[in-house]
Amino acid sequence: MSLLVIGTVAFDAIETPFGKTDKIIGGAATYASISASYFKKDINLVSVVGEDFPSEMIKTFEEKGIHTDGLQIKKGEKTFFWSGKYHEDMNSRDTIDTQLNVLSTFDPIIPEAFQDCEFLMLGNLMPSIQMMVINRMKTRPKLIVMDTMNFWMEIAMDDLLKTISMVDVLTINDAEARQLTGDYSLVKAARKILKMGPKYLIIKKGEHGALLFHEDQVFFAPALPLEDVFDPTGAGDTFAGGFIGYLSSVRDISFESMKRGVIYGSAMASFCVEKFGLERVMNLTDKEVEERVLEFVDLVQFDITLE
Amino acid sequence: MSLLVIGTVAFDAIETPFGKTDKIIGGAATYASISASYFKKDINLVSVVGEDFPSEMIKTFEEKGIHTDGLQIKKGEKTFFWSGKYHEDMNSRDTIDTQLNVLSTFDPIIPEAFQDCEFLMLGNLMPSIQMMVINRMKTRPKLIVMDTMNFWMEIAMDDLLKTISMVDVLTINDAEARQLTGDYSLVKAARKILKMGPKYLIIKKGEHGALLFHEDQVFFAPALPLEDVFDPTGAGDTFAGGFIGYLSSVRDISFESMKRGVIYGSAMASFCVEKFGLERVMNLTDKEVEERVLEFVDLVQFDITLE
Repeated sequence: MSLLVIGTVAFDAIETPFGKTDKIIGGAATYASISASYFKKDINLVSVVGEDFPSEMIKTFEEKGIHTDGLQIKKGEKTFFWSGKYHEDMNSRDTIDTQLNVLSTFDPIIPEAFQDCEFLMLGNLMPSIQMMVINRMKTRPKLIVMDTMNFWMEIAMDDLLKTISMVDVLTINDAEARQLTGDYSLVKAARKILKMGPKYLIIKKGEHGALLFHEDQVFFAPALPLEDVFDPTGAGDTFAGGFIGYLSSVRDISFESMKRGVIYGSAMASFCVEKFGLERVMNLTDKEVEERVLEFVDLVQFDITLE
Repeated sequence: MSLLVIGTVAFDAIETPFGKTDKIIGGAATYASISASYFKKDINLVSVVGEDFPSEMIKTFEEKGIHTDGLQIKKGEKTFFWSGKYHEDMNSRDTIDTQLNVLSTFDPIIPEAFQDCEFLMLGNLMPSIQMMVINRMKTRPKLIVMDTMNFWMEIAMDDLLKTISMVDVLTINDAEARQLTGDYSLVKAARKILKMGPKYLIIKKGEHGALLFHEDQVFFAPALPLEDVFDPTGAGDTFAGGFIGYLSSVRDISFESMKRGVIYGSAMASFCVEKFGLERVMNLTDKEVEERVLEFVDLVQFDITLE
């Protein structure tokens, strides 16, 4: 019973107030699968790269228990490339360059050996491709988690709404929740989104934490107050990976378990932003993850008992 | 052993995207003392108003256990007046009018009967007056909590820094913490402010909750996700009142107790913003307060136990 992660595997070039990188490895599925690998030892990756993608990274995936049989390598083609620059407050960014390359013709083929999957993570990608993946699963997974972004609301709203209606958990950020619903109040926005299909909604608020909504229940996970946020790239994907990685490892999708998943996801995201790109998330020990989770416990734990 | 609250008692005129008010009663000490009165039954108020201030409100203070012997009423003069307009996101506002009136010559006389005070709340006011109050206490209170705002950083920084150095707990908002220290990172800002004198620092982040810092410990209290924020006026004062009201009622100033105080303060502030001005905070039942606090418990409670 494994976890299937689809999404981009890409090259990024990033500039933040703390510095800039050359082409480094990124992509939603990269961050999500590596983050999940700290909790779950059997992860199947479906994505596409070009001939320019380093084989050492594919080896690294395998070493981390991420099976790459579903990672298509297109001969003579180039890997998806994104370049962006973050503003001073790190909450907003400008896209400088996007080269779709192999992504423009991506046909997400799911290897037969990957069909046996209880947990499906749809990383940020064209909604039509996310939908295609759901339709190609012979048995519907026990839990489908979908991440998306504002870009698809602008150019593929119909596909996006159709895909959203098919998933169990949607993760988006606060600005996107407002854009999707036209409501400034996140409580009102959440109510509308939960009527679109998903039974669970996670609204990510970056440095202000994350909210988990389900029916009339709300859970809030803080972000860890950090000295500096060096690079927010991939934080949302890392969050989603930690969330579904944890859930798939315990195979418990109750609300209580999802709350824990949100904390694990937040802990993983707090590592991600401490260094550029994958650097920090790639090289953690289990002990570091455990200690970080305990920092979250300390951060919000208080003792009030009323009669 | 009582709680002494000083600060403004005022008239406000407020405009938010949800509507506008005529002159209504406001002021930092008003919000703080009323909020505190839900926890503490013996509160001493020191402030100043003009002849135009309604005597019914003074009666209301007394009914709520707030002693007004220290509330000076200046014959032939007018009460401090502030008028402001909030922007769409409710996180920023423009001051439309400020009429200092009685405040311009305020001499904070502390009645002899008020000297016996263990807990002192210095509501937002000229730092020189806050300092004068500290100096006029014959015995230093067990806990001095100070609130302030960016305005004093611009026109009275020296007095402000001197006053900050004399208190135990400083409460300011995130933008003010950044302005006071020049650090964007709240963790770095907090470290600097804790070196200015206060042993505890509370950074209020409005709809994003509040952080309590003490030595190398951090505690985070969320804000309750609300359908709508009608009017943020007084939320910070209401927070401070709930915080010190709770602490003075239990007479425990340990870090654990302060964490609970931050939750009680946050619960009170969450009521404040639900209606215009004092309306909501004025008319709560103990049961409503208790239920709101339990909502905070539910909001952040999760169960992770690691070996």
